[in-house]
Amino acid sequence: MTKGNINVSVENIFPLIKKFLYSDHEIFLRELISNATDATLKLKHLTSIGEIKTDYGQPKIEVKIDKEAKTLRIIDQGIGMTAEEVEKYINQVAFSGAEEFLEKYKDSAKDSGIIGHFGLGFYSAFMVAEKVEIVTKSYKEEPAVRWICDGSPQFTLEEATDKTDRGTEIILHIADDSTEFLEESRIRELLLKYNKFMPVPIKFGTRKETLPLPEGAAEDAKPETVEVDNIINNPTPAWTKAPSELSDADYKEFYHELYPMQFEEPLFNIHLNVDYPFNLTGILYFPKLTNGLNIEKDKIQLYQNQVYVTDEVKGIVPDFLMLLRGVIDSPDIPLNVSRSYLQADGAVKKISSYITKKVADKMVSLFNENREDYEKKWNDIKIVIEYGMISEDKFFDKSDKFALYPTTDGKYYLWSELEEKVKPMQTDKDGNFVILYATNADEQHGYIQSANDKGYEVLLLDSPIVPHLIQKLEQSKDKISFARVDADHINNLIKKEDAAISKLNETEKESLKKNIEEAVNDKKFSVQVEDLDSSEAPFLITQPEFMRRMKDMQATGGGGMFGMSGFPEMYNLVVNSNSELASEILKIDDAEDKNSKIKYALDLAKLSQNLLKGKDLTDFIQRSYQQLSK
Amino acid sequence: MTKGNINVSVENIFPLIKKFLYSDHEIFLRELISNATDATLKLKHLTSIGEIKTDYGQPKIEVKIDKEAKTLRIIDQGIGMTAEEVEKYINQVAFSGAEEFLEKYKDSAKDSGIIGHFGLGFYSAFMVAEKVEIVTKSYKEEPAVRWICDGSPQFTLEEATDKTDRGTEIILHIADDSTEFLEESRIRELLLKYNKFMPVPIKFGTRKETLPLPEGAAEDAKPETVEVDNIINNPTPAWTKAPSELSDADYKEFYHELYPMQFEEPLFNIHLNVDYPFNLTGILYFPKLTNGLNIEKDKIQLYQNQVYVTDEVKGIVPDFLMLLRGVIDSPDIPLNVSRSYLQADGAVKKISSYITKKVADKMVSLFNENREDYEKKWNDIKIVIEYGMISEDKFFDKSDKFALYPTTDGKYYLWSELEEKVKPMQTDKDGNFVILYATNADEQHGYIQSANDKGYEVLLLDSPIVPHLIQKLEQSKDKISFARVDADHINNLIKKEDAAISKLNETEKESLKKNIEEAVNDKKFSVQVEDLDSSEAPFLITQPEFMRRMKDMQATGGGGMFGMSGFPEMYNLVVNSNSELASEILKIDDAEDKNSKIKYALDLAKLSQNLLKGKDLTDFIQRSYQQLSK
Repeated sequence: MTKGNINVSVENIFPLIKKFLYSDHEIFLRELISNATDATLKLKHLTSIGEIKTDYGQPKIEVKIDKEAKTLRIIDQGIGMTAEEVEKYINQVAFSGAEEFLEKYKDSAKDSGIIGHFGLGFYSAFMVAEKVEIVTKSYKEEPAVRWICDGSPQFTLEEATDKTDRGTEIILHIADDSTEFLEESRIRELLLKYNKFMPVPIKFGTRKETLPLPEGAAEDAKPETVEVDNIINNPTPAWTKAPSELSDADYKEFYHELYPMQFEEPLFNIHLNVDYPFNLTGILYFPKLTNGLNIEKDKIQLYQNQVYVTDEVKGIVPDFLMLLRGVIDSPDIPLNVSRSYLQADGAVKKISSYITKKVADKMVSLFNENREDYEKKWNDIKIVIEYGMISEDKFFDKSDKFALYPTTDGKYYLWSELEEKVKPMQTDKDGNFVILYATNADEQHGYIQSANDKGYEVLLLDSPIVPHLIQKLEQSKDKISFARVDADHINNLIKKEDAAISKLNETEKESLKKNIEEAVNDKKFSVQVEDLDSSEAPFLITQPEFMRRMKDMQATGGGGMFGMSGFPEMYNLVVNSNSELASEILKIDDAEDKNSKIKYALDLAKLSQNLLKGKDLTDFIQRSYQQLSK
Repeated sequence: MTKGNINVSVENIFPLIKKFLYSDHEIFLRELISNATDATLKLKHLTSIGEIKTDYGQPKIEVKIDKEAKTLRIIDQGIGMTAEEVEKYINQVAFSGAEEFLEKYKDSAKDSGIIGHFGLGFYSAFMVAEKVEIVTKSYKEEPAVRWICDGSPQFTLEEATDKTDRGTEIILHIADDSTEFLEESRIRELLLKYNKFMPVPIKFGTRKETLPLPEGAAEDAKPETVEVDNIINNPTPAWTKAPSELSDADYKEFYHELYPMQFEEPLFNIHLNVDYPFNLTGILYFPKLTNGLNIEKDKIQLYQNQVYVTDEVKGIVPDFLMLLRGVIDSPDIPLNVSRSYLQADGAVKKISSYITKKVADKMVSLFNENREDYEKKWNDIKIVIEYGMISEDKFFDKSDKFALYPTTDGKYYLWSELEEKVKPMQTDKDGNFVILYATNADEQHGYIQSANDKGYEVLLLDSPIVPHLIQKLEQSKDKISFARVDADHINNLIKKEDAAISKLNETEKESLKKNIEEAVNDKKFSVQVEDLDSSEAPFLITQPEFMRRMKDMQATGGGGMFGMSGFPEMYNLVVNSNSELASEILKIDDAEDKNSKIKYALDLAKLSQNLLKGKDLTDFIQRSYQQLSK
């Protein structure tokens, strides 16, 4: 038996890194700036614990392009490296300098939040550079060194007498297939994408700034302009601060910093802050969702210690909150793993349920603090809340404290208020609380009016997911049911004990029904003669709740019964036996007259359900114009 | 100056591979079966060129789970490896065996389509296994060997006297965090996902098969059942065959093989086959898009030499074809690269434009072969074609040969036919060809009828992207313009030289206009008195083309003028001065009577534009019922 060591052949490791390390070449810049940031934060840490005696000062990171020389340089003022350290951290691929650093200064470093990718990330430079130089001078009393490697495993290392100030300069000699990274606009784009909120100031070029005139300056004095560093990032973004330090205006300002193309103000924000059992900070915003155009673009952004990672947060943020905007920053979210893994990961599940809880709590306090304002915003936030109620049981359980049920006449009820104010009137003879609702106040206006005339209240539930919400509520609460206001005549929707009185006897009703069925002659409509109040409409078209709801559910995906979509539309034609028109119809002898009267009444009933269309509508209008001109 | 070699520290390479090699752990199975396939195809190749004297036979690959022993085994009957080869291909990470093989048998191997990932892919096994064994016997006269490695860089290698038949067996000792890969259902799922069409039969378990009864068997004879290998894949999927070998039924069968949950038949297919300047085969299907539920799920699948890669084909397939289904197989599509890179890649651009051209050609031939059938399918395919016309100029240029323009009365015109049959009648006095269209035959019925009465034809263009299509056509073709049939009175949409005759003099018209403006009293409607035929409707509501189209464009995203969505709805109220009602209105003395007549006429005009809603509609219906009951 042979024993041996697997040999990683170095000749092949570079192409491997180039091909597999990151699928996105542009990532190299994020990695190098992360390294520069780590080196700077390490300096800060060592200074703070007295390991380094120099003053920390206000170090920055500089990014410079030289198009002629085809170089891109990243220069930091961090701890730098000695020749020995270059040998150790750079020449040994896959050796994590940060890990060792963390091990050494474990307890004190933990708090300062330094997590580095040193070593591995550096090699991503070879994805875009044909040659890489490192010129570095350590904070220790040792000469600066210059390391050069052309992407083959050979490197050279020598003293760099020209470098006298502390820190590391990475010089990338950009390869011919990557010249895009010599364009100022491209680098600016990348810096703004990945480094906009990194904790060390990043200088990219300079800009002119106009100085204010000195006091008492002459009226024709020209203000002086000076060149200042152009700092591209905000090293202390709002989410890194305590909520107590931030005003409402600060939160709004940060929103616009995150989404410069958003002109609308956010409705409100939720500041996230947890450090046990995982670390997570962030700010979520409820946007005004009226426009709908930016849903795809301005998404929640995920950061790791202020470094942008992605805006694909599916799995981390519960689905119903994907419509929100803002940032989440957590070192505890595993990256580079598949979505299916992410969803099964325990830590991620905890994060997701923490966020859900936090949002629910915030809703409760927003509602309690200023109900009027909350009601005004309800229309913009309801889709998120309702989706949450359907999809997250814990959120649903808390929703009684903040979910609103608006009525068609502009009132907003909590569930408990519905039970208090609406239930007594709308409980039917079997003790069921029937909640009437409309999905469109305009289209169902006639039906809403009938319900209001009876003293009933009608909810306006117009989100596309309402059928699912209703189902959830019916399953969770006792002795309640929802009925759309046009599902039947209002007397049948909430059945009371009252006996109905009829002007017509049974024979007359039979004959009326027969007359109407013959005139209508359409299987879509099932005629139903009812003893209603004489003042009510003579004809009324209704669509049974169950059937309509199944169809609605299927239309919004999921739920509903299989094959329902192929089912024909079925309606009831409710005829009011006590209406004048009913008596009128029975009296007419001329068959043609009778038919035309019934058809006209049917047309009117159809109009009320938005069912009179095409040729039928055109004919109706033409006939009516003729009538009018007579 | 020091010179040296960068040292890849092996201790760190395994975690690196585990973490970075593939983000999806399940990929290991695809990699191992790819290796087994390569080994089998290499055997086939060496046999075919006489390098190996044995018979190729019908080798297969077997996948076996042993839940108790916690192992997953992949067993092939390919060329196997000698101890020396294991040393070379396995112990040297990142050394590609396939590359060397290709180099040696360059010309002959090219044709047999062998591309392997040997070496690197193998190590993905360590993503799920704590220990990996290889037991392998080469086709060469050498003893079998057993290689064992526990994921540390140490391995052992010894003779394996128990292995006597040619081929390689990989034994994965599944790690505790990966026990999902010991579940039969999970492995079956993976095999069906990645290996469903790989070129070597893959056995996974056995199944019972009932033998047919022998001829002349007794009536009560029971059919015999036997255990047979359960082959999970189809090694020769339709796209690997020549179109001439395939019938219509074969294409349909393959469609259902690809999408087992699809019960609808595809409308037609396009067989792709190119080998210069890149290699690509595949079959695309036009699905019936009526249902809409499966758009997200059943997408075009991308293969590389019959190995499933992904169903994210954005960038490879032009956007407008993303609604199609089917497969594309090409070794020339770079994987593991970012989307932005993909879109800039020259080869990928060529592939995309080849597919576009091929689809256009197919449309032409489908139209020419059976126009009637093509017209029947138009409604299902138009969204794809129209989107293609808008987004791909080359596709637009060819579209005159296959894009149809249906009319509201069921005719289908090519553009040339529109010019031949419709243009003469619908050219206005300035020589512009005015193409009338409706977006909804039901809702715009009255307006369509008016146009038809004049002898005009009205196109039915009801896709959501029609505003963009119309704009494209107007920009590309000379002296044409589109007008929706309700954009103005038909006489104004296509202006002819005919002088208008009026029953009313100017003073009467002025007074009529004033009467109506006062009664209507709504800034949304701008009153416009016109001398129309006396038989035409007295009132007509129209909405100017430009304004409406801009709004429509903005609603479907892109185009339109900034801020248009906030613009109020504006309509023209066209009053026919020659109608009886117009004279009637002038004659009425009683102001209330006059007002009520005008309002009723306005309600009727609103109905025709679906503008009478809510309380106004309810009131209209109530009034009409009262009228009817009198």
